[in-house]
Amino acid sequence: MIQERLRLLRQKMKESGVTVYVIPSSDCHESEYVCGHYRARAYITGFTGSAGTAVVTLEDAGLWTDGRYFIQAELELRDTGIRLFRTGEPGVPNVETYVKEHLEKGGRLGFDGKVMGAFRAEALIKAAEEKKAGVLATEDLVGAIWEDRPEIPDAPVFILESNYCGESVKRKLMRVREKLEELEADIHVVASLCDIAWILNIRGGDIPGVPVTLSYLCITKNTCTWYVRSSVITEEIRSYLSENKIQVKEYEAVYEDLTKLGPGLNVLMDKRKVNHRLLTSIPQGARLIDKSNPSELMKAVKNETELKNLRIAHLKESIAFTRLMYWVKTNVRKQEITELSVSEYLNERRKEQAHYLGESFSPICAYGPNAAIVHYSADKRSNAVIEAKGFLLVDAGGHYLEGTTDTTRTFALGELTEEQKRMFTAVCRANLNLANARFLYGCTGYTLDVLCREPLWQFGMDYKHGTGHGVGYLLNVHEGPNAFRWKMPEDERAAVLEAGMVTTDEPGIYVEGEYGIRTENELVCVKGTENEYGQFMEFEIVTLVPIDLDGIVPEEMTLTERNYLNDYHQRVYHTLAPYLSGEEREWLKVSTRAV
Amino acid sequence: MIQERLRLLRQKMKESGVTVYVIPSSDCHESEYVCGHYRARAYITGFTGSAGTAVVTLEDAGLWTDGRYFIQAELELRDTGIRLFRTGEPGVPNVETYVKEHLEKGGRLGFDGKVMGAFRAEALIKAAEEKKAGVLATEDLVGAIWEDRPEIPDAPVFILESNYCGESVKRKLMRVREKLEELEADIHVVASLCDIAWILNIRGGDIPGVPVTLSYLCITKNTCTWYVRSSVITEEIRSYLSENKIQVKEYEAVYEDLTKLGPGLNVLMDKRKVNHRLLTSIPQGARLIDKSNPSELMKAVKNETELKNLRIAHLKESIAFTRLMYWVKTNVRKQEITELSVSEYLNERRKEQAHYLGESFSPICAYGPNAAIVHYSADKRSNAVIEAKGFLLVDAGGHYLEGTTDTTRTFALGELTEEQKRMFTAVCRANLNLANARFLYGCTGYTLDVLCREPLWQFGMDYKHGTGHGVGYLLNVHEGPNAFRWKMPEDERAAVLEAGMVTTDEPGIYVEGEYGIRTENELVCVKGTENEYGQFMEFEIVTLVPIDLDGIVPEEMTLTERNYLNDYHQRVYHTLAPYLSGEEREWLKVSTRAV
Repeated sequence: MIQERLRLLRQKMKESGVTVYVIPSSDCHESEYVCGHYRARAYITGFTGSAGTAVVTLEDAGLWTDGRYFIQAELELRDTGIRLFRTGEPGVPNVETYVKEHLEKGGRLGFDGKVMGAFRAEALIKAAEEKKAGVLATEDLVGAIWEDRPEIPDAPVFILESNYCGESVKRKLMRVREKLEELEADIHVVASLCDIAWILNIRGGDIPGVPVTLSYLCITKNTCTWYVRSSVITEEIRSYLSENKIQVKEYEAVYEDLTKLGPGLNVLMDKRKVNHRLLTSIPQGARLIDKSNPSELMKAVKNETELKNLRIAHLKESIAFTRLMYWVKTNVRKQEITELSVSEYLNERRKEQAHYLGESFSPICAYGPNAAIVHYSADKRSNAVIEAKGFLLVDAGGHYLEGTTDTTRTFALGELTEEQKRMFTAVCRANLNLANARFLYGCTGYTLDVLCREPLWQFGMDYKHGTGHGVGYLLNVHEGPNAFRWKMPEDERAAVLEAGMVTTDEPGIYVEGEYGIRTENELVCVKGTENEYGQFMEFEIVTLVPIDLDGIVPEEMTLTERNYLNDYHQRVYHTLAPYLSGEEREWLKVSTRAV
Repeated sequence: MIQERLRLLRQKMKESGVTVYVIPSSDCHESEYVCGHYRARAYITGFTGSAGTAVVTLEDAGLWTDGRYFIQAELELRDTGIRLFRTGEPGVPNVETYVKEHLEKGGRLGFDGKVMGAFRAEALIKAAEEKKAGVLATEDLVGAIWEDRPEIPDAPVFILESNYCGESVKRKLMRVREKLEELEADIHVVASLCDIAWILNIRGGDIPGVPVTLSYLCITKNTCTWYVRSSVITEEIRSYLSENKIQVKEYEAVYEDLTKLGPGLNVLMDKRKVNHRLLTSIPQGARLIDKSNPSELMKAVKNETELKNLRIAHLKESIAFTRLMYWVKTNVRKQEITELSVSEYLNERRKEQAHYLGESFSPICAYGPNAAIVHYSADKRSNAVIEAKGFLLVDAGGHYLEGTTDTTRTFALGELTEEQKRMFTAVCRANLNLANARFLYGCTGYTLDVLCREPLWQFGMDYKHGTGHGVGYLLNVHEGPNAFRWKMPEDERAAVLEAGMVTTDEPGIYVEGEYGIRTENELVCVKGTENEYGQFMEFEIVTLVPIDLDGIVPEEMTLTERNYLNDYHQRVYHTLAPYLSGEEREWLKVSTRAV
């Protein structure tokens, strides 16, 4: 099937003189997750992970993805003839290098400029220019061969009331405009859907797991224009927008409007957050200010209302998750439980909670060797039956009106090897050491990452993914600019950890073909003491689910680490107990005992 | 005295129309330490620290220095009328901002371009231009009023034999030239004295503590020209240079030679390592390649010969230091010991070792409250008598033919408070946690720094200096690009820790008016296991001096930390015991017992 699609694509390439065609994973908004309509890269390669780029030449085809997806990509690319390029591994060329190597003088590079990020497009075009090859950036060649392509959705939108968002659109626009003035920008073009949803206090449902609506936003000193499909604008929304002096225009009209910008205007646009077509719609006479969207940092720092709500959302999620843990651990020997039924059970428990809106990402319920696939997603074919031994890894999250959650626990389901216990304990130590960090204001996620990795590095182990990512408020579960990482990319500056930022803490250990362990909590950065040395900062752990003591070897932990675990478990017990049934509560008491 | 000097300087400023005059701490080579001739900043302000900048206006005067020197600068500036600006503290303007604020249209900025770094000069000139003020960068106004200014020295130079340097000048030049080719540079101008000494395998003695000779080096594909005072060139040196095809020219001739460079030439020059005059001597037609000196990274990565020697140098230094520790601790109640007599005793013990060449920096022997001054230097006035209580901090180092050392130990001399013991233990834990780090290749000093600070941050404490610096081989005890730091400057990229790099590990705690604690070892970065996760790296501790167990509270340490300490002490005992007297050996045995 994949080979047939590649054949058809190559035919289209030949028809338009394209010799190298690049297919990214994005939609027109540089979204991480995309709706079915934009899954061109998955359609052409069969690789379904969220991150990856395909390059097709007339003879060769390659897929680039990162460490989270190596195992999955290997499986999904089997028999397609598409080569896997493991990004970040020694000796693996990046996409630009490969493109350059495969473009010849007189050849032609092709990509769909609307789904190609402006920043990446520049690098590709530069590669083409260096090889004296042409560029065709306007054709969606995969679209041209795609039968039964899903439609672009137009899910209904709704207003996020002030008791949930905590700041009015008027005030948010005022803050963005202050920043525009500081940067001397005349107009600010926002394509990132989460930024738009945050600024407008409006949510939608166009992307599975991400409650946003496909649209663009242009902000000037006096105007704010929302480019959105009119089909989603109800009377209520219309009057809300007009109240807030927000003009509405058709979704696609933004491209033409940009071409009409007068000369000498300063346009603030983040090259990493807009597509190539949008960037190149700006007329020559205008000056680009290529800086982060001001809303990126603003939305990462949660306000008091959001933080208060987040604690409620996490309480709800933690109750559901803990009940799942109880159910799986007590029933694994009694009834057939599968990866899919675990996801289902968790979702049922969530639905019992008020204001639950749906999953914040496709859950990872992975038993045994499946858990070694970092971003595994169970389907009917792979769906494993869970046995009373080894580990079950559950990484899942929900959207509530009170915020978005992301939790991972690994359940010990009976017999474990000494090695497995030692590794489970190491992951727990890694997680708790980071969560209990105390640090001076000014630290970034790069400063602190080693606190999490060191317990694993001491064993000569590592996990090939970041230690943690920011989390949106009823938005994308992956949000910048805060993150925990150890290796800083050449072209990035790290974001200082600010009070109010929410970041996950999710170390893991993966042994291919055997097992996977990950323990993930969400951490809210809060202010600690201020003294002569400066402002100290700390984390508040908002996820409250037991860490399975059946996997813990207390002798492998320092006294401090044991105290961290015991203190956390005390909080878990006292917070959740009132919401559980008698049996569940009894079980929780034992499961959160001091070690 | 200082006020009189300021008055005379202001007179000179008026004569040349200068309204704001900036005096850096450097010589013509951007050296950190300088010979007496170049201590203009100390002459004009009275502040004797190694780092600091003075700015004098017609009405005001300020001195900028960093956290290491806050207490010392405060003391030394008392009654001078010069205001202290604490670099890095909140709300403190930097030099450029201050200069801009105090320059008026029609005013004139002045500095001596030969001792002002090219990079800083640019920022200052930009500030002046923004205020439409003039610039006078050619006059040494402090020199004009300086009576009895010390002469520029011309200490003898010597060749560092291959059994010490491990790589011939021919091979070093070849490697530098390879880099020039890679960067497409036609000529490389080196002003940094340590780089020159390293490339040429020649040492001198023009700067106290830094065995280098004042000179410049110009390298092209086929030539190598050393601009150096002919007075230091002996027959032996001359024939060594000629053997290696190195041409000699007069020291100051470099400036004129640069002005004669043909147009279209690519000149590799590190703006942060050359003075303003040198940079501006390059003709308009040439293209500047502003990158690090290739020799900077090369000399930071010690070769096998250097590493073998370094272990010998550290053994010698550790014997001397340990004997000092024995002597102070056993005699403090019996005889009068002062800060100065401690330095002297240490130096006497060093002189008993072969190939000892002198101190690698002015030793810090600081008793009681004096130790809270991070870079304290005892003189006859301050020289404290050491009592049988509290802490004595000794930070000292030596140059041997086998390399340069830098060690700090804090001796407990009797009664300590609980608080003092807890802090001493925390510093020890901080030091050992970093030294025992295991990490993936690709980490920098920024990645790992928190391992050292976290034990102190947990107590709400910090030290206002870097955790560690690179160490030269019979060169400057402070060497880049490797370092342990937590806060990355805006304009810097961190250096990856390479096998063979030597970095100090020196956390501390300073309580103003009470005491100071610091424990410093030198760490050699070495390769560990290589596996599917990558290349693991580790440190070898080369400093082998007991950490005073009288200050240690074992209960405050994790079992792992206690093992780190006990393992280290076992190495200390077994390595040093053969070189000690019977009494010393007995004492060492007890002092390195397991806790």
